[in-house]
Amino acid sequence: MRPGKGQHVASGDGNYRWPHRHLLGLEDLSAQDVRFLLQTAVGLEDVSTRSIKKVPALRGRVVVNLFMEDSTRTRSSFSLAASRLSADVLDLSGSGSSVSKGETLRDTARNIEAMGVDVIVCRHAQSGAAMHLADVVSCSVVNAGDGQHEHPTQALLDLYTIAQHTGRDTFDLGGFTVAIVGDIQHSRVARSNIHGLLKLGAKVILVAPATLLPRGFADLGCELCHDLDSVLPRVDVVYMLRVQFERLTSQAFPSVREYVAAYGLTKRRLARARPETLVMHPGPVNRGIEIDAGVADGRQSMILAQVTNGLAVRMATLFLVCTSSASSP
Amino acid sequence: MRPGKGQHVASGDGNYRWPHRHLLGLEDLSAQDVRFLLQTAVGLEDVSTRSIKKVPALRGRVVVNLFMEDSTRTRSSFSLAASRLSADVLDLSGSGSSVSKGETLRDTARNIEAMGVDVIVCRHAQSGAAMHLADVVSCSVVNAGDGQHEHPTQALLDLYTIAQHTGRDTFDLGGFTVAIVGDIQHSRVARSNIHGLLKLGAKVILVAPATLLPRGFADLGCELCHDLDSVLPRVDVVYMLRVQFERLTSQAFPSVREYVAAYGLTKRRLARARPETLVMHPGPVNRGIEIDAGVADGRQSMILAQVTNGLAVRMATLFLVCTSSASSP
Amino acid sequence: MRPGKGQHVASGDGNYRWPHRHLLGLEDLSAQDVRFLLQTAVGLEDVSTRSIKKVPALRGRVVVNLFMEDSTRTRSSFSLAASRLSADVLDLSGSGSSVSKGETLRDTARNIEAMGVDVIVCRHAQSGAAMHLADVVSCSVVNAGDGQHEHPTQALLDLYTIAQHTGRDTFDLGGFTVAIVGDIQHSRVARSNIHGLLKLGAKVILVAPATLLPRGFADLGCELCHDLDSVLPRVDVVYMLRVQFERLTSQAFPSVREYVAAYGLTKRRLARARPETLVMHPGPVNRGIEIDAGVADGRQSMILAQVTNGLAVRMATLFLVCTSSASSP
Repeated sequence: MRPGKGQHVASGDGNYRWPHRHLLGLEDLSAQDVRFLLQTAVGLEDVSTRSIKKVPALRGRVVVNLFMEDSTRTRSSFSLAASRLSADVLDLSGSGSSVSKGETLRDTARNIEAMGVDVIVCRHAQSGAAMHLADVVSCSVVNAGDGQHEHPTQALLDLYTIAQHTGRDTFDLGGFTVAIVGDIQHSRVARSNIHGLLKLGAKVILVAPATLLPRGFADLGCELCHDLDSVLPRVDVVYMLRVQFERLTSQAFPSVREYVAAYGLTKRRLARARPETLVMHPGPVNRGIEIDAGVADGRQSMILAQVTNGLAVRMATLFLVCTSSASSP
Repeated sequence: MRPGKGQHVASGDGNYRWPHRHLLGLEDLSAQDVRFLLQTAVGLEDVSTRSIKKVPALRGRVVVNLFMEDSTRTRSSFSLAASRLSADVLDLSGSGSSVSKGETLRDTARNIEAMGVDVIVCRHAQSGAAMHLADVVSCSVVNAGDGQHEHPTQALLDLYTIAQHTGRDTFDLGGFTVAIVGDIQHSRVARSNIHGLLKLGAKVILVAPATLLPRGFADLGCELCHDLDSVLPRVDVVYMLRVQFERLTSQAFPSVREYVAAYGLTKRRLARARPETLVMHPGPVNRGIEIDAGVADGRQSMILAQVTNGLAVRMATLFLVCTSSASSP
Repeated sequence: MRPGKGQHVASGDGNYRWPHRHLLGLEDLSAQDVRFLLQTAVGLEDVSTRSIKKVPALRGRVVVNLFMEDSTRTRSSFSLAASRLSADVLDLSGSGSSVSKGETLRDTARNIEAMGVDVIVCRHAQSGAAMHLADVVSCSVVNAGDGQHEHPTQALLDLYTIAQHTGRDTFDLGGFTVAIVGDIQHSRVARSNIHGLLKLGAKVILVAPATLLPRGFADLGCELCHDLDSVLPRVDVVYMLRVQFERLTSQAFPSVREYVAAYGLTKRRLARARPETLVMHPGPVNRGIEIDAGVADGRQSMILAQVTNGLAVRMATLFLVCTSSASSP
């Protein structure tokens, strides 16, 4: 699928213009915002398949990766996305930065901003860190994961991948069912996906042991469930979260082995789902834990497609926050 | 202020051409050199305010950051400055470099040079390291801080900031008084600023406890003083140095608390100065130690302006050393 | 020398086109392949001597440095080579990468590839790692050193240097004798050079203590020898390997001191060779161990020329693997 390639946003309002200087989470975006960003990504997807993978859209702009938690994958994706738009990229990381001299995040960010940067892409262990940054700087802030709060570009690339592989080229997921499986409680990926999927009209089933499944999500309209086997036959997507070993065993579950027995996605278990059900995972995968190697590499796995789509979605994100009406000085 | 924007150097000699292949310190520059570099920075300042923050002045040139001491801030500033001139940047750091395999600084530098680089920007814990490099390579060397010796681009951005905020658009600081406060003894920032300020005609007062204030600076023409309160009413700029905790308490002063009581810049203490007195600091700030949060973020604080001006000054530095008469092969 | 500059490959077959998507080692290349790559490097050498050191040959392509072992020197050389061809470079390293989250090399590589990269330059402690990568990705892989197996671009720059300094502008080393001295057993540099030198027609003498000199190399056509002094008078090049202290003393030799006495290249020892004999070393040099400072910096030393030529050879490598017939999708 190439949903609506080259055409303008199909959201009905010809005068719509992306209004946000920052991308902090999906909770605060409208459905129209989400669809417009995904539609913009469609237009930019082609760039990555050319031999000259570059457009001059953000030439002379500066994108800073401020990653206070390690994440090669996400950082690389943002770096390449920025390069494809011809922006300059500066990589800063927690260790070796001024932060280790006792500087606050606020001071670090304001100093970076004073150097004339356009976007700060921030990964931080603290929930709310990106929002805090957005309050103290006047450049754009993109949340690349803040604690257990949100990871919006991950969810956007997931939505993009679902739409791409199911022909939903208007990014309307009405009548579509997605199960998110694993440690919902601590997962920013789950949180962002829940908001995004619901906004686009999908039905969301959260599958986890009771200790990792906050009841509050039912109020948002999600179905809560503890039994993966019973859910699989009726979902279009099964989205497996990464197991965080340190959290799992110490707090919430007797052992990794028991967790795997109940929630690991084996080939045998996946056979309960329809053949066209998609398997997704935000990576990096713990093979043999939350997902078996045969499933991760299988025909239904979207894992590498997700990575590829991350580029288009992050290009769209950087482009929109840099050129939004709210960003004009 | 935009001192003399677009015009040529106001130093009287129309035939002046920047003569230095390296920038190792301010001690060896003439007043004319300093003014010419600052004037060049004025011409480049605009680049950072455009949406396309880039000029092709150094396209195809290679700038290597060889930082043997951590410094996110200075390294980032040089990287962005080089990018704005369209140079390629290679970041090397002490850990993980060949140096950790026992290679000497000389061998490291000569190997880097052999790869065809144009400028090595060097930060090193050893006083004299940059000068040593300049002796063994034929490319340009810019000193980004060497031990307790000099940090010339820091002083240049400080001079630029003072001139910018006081309307001294010829970079003549005659009749102007600057107090530098803190551990003068161990500070390369102080040393470079003393040379720069004196060359531009300013009066310099060094304020520190006796143990941190070498008598020799009096011979250069500085006034030495131990009492910050008595100095504040008569200065145009109060320049607070960063406290290096490990040095302060072990060698020179009974406790941080007593130091702060005598030399910390609180709002109350700053009230002794004139309302137009500027507050400066090289960053990163120890809030509540050498400077209070309210002062660092206050109306008189130039701290973020210093950071912003660092870009223009470093662009000028890289441009001049790359295009000097001495650099032509 | 500028061997055959601007002319096409002198290998007789006008229809020759570089056929390899990867560069994994010299063992599997034909003599024609090796000569063609070196000839291509000749054409690219000029780029590094211009003031604008850049050609647009690989604009919009992405080169990823995936270095699981530290190597500032090789990584920098590849980065600069990529920049000179206008490619974008992404630096990944073992520490702080997803690998430290337990991901396999295969998963890391496939994820990188999914982001749309063109070349993965891989350094790894495991022999065969680059070949393994080439099996699991469809982008190009360049081996930047894998365990004790091969380091092909090092050997190529060595061959280039020998030809450049001996006027062998057809890259025919017939009648030419090279001694490789040191820990042959564990050296990927030795292994790649042996294959390359033999393919170009040179005679190769391996000089090492018996414990570090595998007998199998005799079958390839190398002469094996334990006495450096007797070999020196009859060689055109003496190639000194770097001493790996941890291996040398624990496994193979009584002490570093005795090793140096027998195999260290002092000025006095070098005097046994002809005045035009070239001294080479892959760097970084242990001065006073395998080679004396006076020899490393002496008239016969090619060490810095090797570093310089690394750029041209790596530019040729990146260019050829990106544009080979095998790389067309």
